Amino acid sequence: MSIVKEKTDQAIKILKELDVDLWLTYVRKTSEIMDPCLYFLTDESWFTWETAFVITKKGERVAICGRYDVPNVNKNIYEKIIGYDISIREPLHGVLNGLNPQVIAVNYSIDNIAADGLTHGMWLRLNKLLEGTNYAKILISSEKILGALRGRKTPSELALIKEAIKISQEGHLKITEKIKLGMTEKDIEKILMEHTMQKNVKVSYPPLINVGSDTAIGHGRGLSHIKVKQGDLINIDYGVFYQGYASDIQRLCYALRDGENEPPEEIKKAFQTVVEAITKSSEALRPSVMGWEVDSIARKIVTDGGYPEFMHALGHQIGRNVHDGGCLLGPKWEKYGQLPFMKVEEGQVFTLELHVFLENHGFCGLEEDVLVTVEGCQFLSDRQTELKLLKF
Amino acid sequence: MSIVKEKTDQAIKILKELDVDLWLTYVRKTSEIMDPCLYFLTDESWFTWETAFVITKKGERVAICGRYDVPNVNKNIYEKIIGYDISIREPLHGVLNGLNPQVIAVNYSIDNIAADGLTHGMWLRLNKLLEGTNYAKILISSEKILGALRGRKTPSELALIKEAIKISQEGHLKITEKIKLGMTEKDIEKILMEHTMQKNVKVSYPPLINVGSDTAIGHGRGLSHIKVKQGDLINIDYGVFYQGYASDIQRLCYALRDGENEPPEEIKKAFQTVVEAITKSSEALRPSVMGWEVDSIARKIVTDGGYPEFMHALGHQIGRNVHDGGCLLGPKWEKYGQLPFMKVEEGQVFTLELHVFLENHGFCGLEEDVLVTVEGCQFLSDRQTELKLLKF
Repeated sequence: MSIVKEKTDQAIKILKELDVDLWLTYVRKTSEIMDPCLYFLTDESWFTWETAFVITKKGERVAICGRYDVPNVNKNIYEKIIGYDISIREPLHGVLNGLNPQVIAVNYSIDNIAADGLTHGMWLRLNKLLEGTNYAKILISSEKILGALRGRKTPSELALIKEAIKISQEGHLKITEKIKLGMTEKDIEKILMEHTMQKNVKVSYPPLINVGSDTAIGHGRGLSHIKVKQGDLINIDYGVFYQGYASDIQRLCYALRDGENEPPEEIKKAFQTVVEAITKSSEALRPSVMGWEVDSIARKIVTDGGYPEFMHALGHQIGRNVHDGGCLLGPKWEKYGQLPFMKVEEGQVFTLELHVFLENHGFCGLEEDVLVTVEGCQFLSDRQTELKLLKF
Repeated sequence: MSIVKEKTDQAIKILKELDVDLWLTYVRKTSEIMDPCLYFLTDESWFTWETAFVITKKGERVAICGRYDVPNVNKNIYEKIIGYDISIREPLHGVLNGLNPQVIAVNYSIDNIAADGLTHGMWLRLNKLLEGTNYAKILISSEKILGALRGRKTPSELALIKEAIKISQEGHLKITEKIKLGMTEKDIEKILMEHTMQKNVKVSYPPLINVGSDTAIGHGRGLSHIKVKQGDLINIDYGVFYQGYASDIQRLCYALRDGENEPPEEIKKAFQTVVEAITKSSEALRPSVMGWEVDSIARKIVTDGGYPEFMHALGHQIGRNVHDGGCLLGPKWEKYGQLPFMKVEEGQVFTLELHVFLENHGFCGLEEDVLVTVEGCQFLSDRQTELKLLKF
């Protein structure tokens, strides 16, 4: 079944569950800025003039778009596709009058990035379009709808995520096979990018390579000419998009010093702390727990171990993006808003990721991808529980 | 000089000209949804946590972002780059208090798509962040700033657009050389896509191929198995992005019938009408004219010729996108809002495009790319003024 079919069917179920009459996605010039939920609504994401996708809890699906964009809407999904020339006003009013909703959910959210595809200008424009009608007064945020819709993976979505994970893991394996003393962070990135190209996929974020204790920690291109030397921890954070679905995995190696057969105690302890934090938090991860509760378990293990806490969330969702929005396994920090207070749901896929930084060796971190099932947490990635030792 | 340097310098000039104290670009998770003006503010567009770019009319440039994103901000452009861990609130207040603006422009616009990068959720979030301060009361739309900034091309930008035009025109030339009877619209698209790949660029929109009178007119994939036959008009609309800058060009051929040495009168007249409409409107295109005035000249020539008017604007800007927002050479239709009432400025690059549809032959259209200079309109594309005749 197509993703668009699965997701629009799912959207109708969620509207029923949340008792929301009508969900309206209102976009324009999607080549300039695109509401990320459009991927769930139609296969072709190229819409030039104002376009409205309407889905109701009764199961109606209607699209209104500029006449030239009509061929871009999935015909098998929408029972009515209305093309217009001059203004969307009349067809939009017509559709709303026909459906007579008591509540209209639109895509904005203070906290949930994945549910915030309506621009402020489009919000104002919609209010202008609906001026003088009751509809302007019944607009609500669709964040609960989109939180659920993006979170609950359908069978097709799960299959794609698993494939993305497989490709990432193969990339990680190549690194451990090919890595040599003196290689730079940039060299390692190159191996990963070659693997990515060979697999005909794209990275889901710029790979993060952290070699030794002089590395720059960052979300971005911290890549440098820093070289692998004995005594270094080598952390690789690498994910790909497979047919639009993401993986996000960290793996860790240690470059043994001459004469060493195992890492120093300092590393062993840190690695065990990270593994333990993932184990214990994964045991707590199940439907209905709140995000911050899972995060706090890992965080406490780290601080109890005498380490400073990691300055990010323990886990984010993955799916249509590498940070899939909605419920977050994160601390109650202002920047995370309400996300850590959301409840975990069945079918969500999370990362579990954290690190400890060792002044003498570098970034000691791991990241796994896990699925929430009714029974609890199921690892989708092949967990790393032993530090990979490199002997040169 | 780098585009980011040129454009941030230009932004400061525009702030002075418009007497706006401070321009604030406020983004988060740019991999999910990205304010399109970010390209002008920094080379790396990957920002995960809330990020603020502040530019003032006095020339100050400050960036505030999550600690891990600090390496992604251009160090040579921003005099201050502030990384934070828990919340952007304190550093943002600190920066605003230091600069003490009387007006803050943020990126939303009802009409100008290219100036509408702030999502509604981020608008609400910003207002929450600024609650209790005077700043929440002095927020205005940056549409005039961004209209000018995106419109007025710098030397580096113009050079890139010219290269994009060159690559498009080479693609168009290939079509006229390779086209054969019986080729489908899909076959023609394939030739263009191969050319695009060879040139190592991307299309700036899905190419539009319209063969004969059975073709589907659309913004999207109207591509079909319709075959080239004698008596058909063949219209190709094809543009590329060269280093992020767009071209957008339509070219037209006619497949002569056996025994024909020139097209039927009906086509000659329609083609001349389209050429004439471009000529006359280009003569009117100069700084300070309003967009709708230029559009109306072309529109009148078409309707005076006895044809129905074309149901789109005569010309849009091109640049960082294939529809670059701001002033539009378009009719006063509701969907275009205020854009046709904006004044044309020196340095803007427009398309001039229109068509007449002939029931017996198909889509008779042309599209040129032009630059507005102080002297008037300069064609950047090699104008098509003769119908290309194909003899099979």
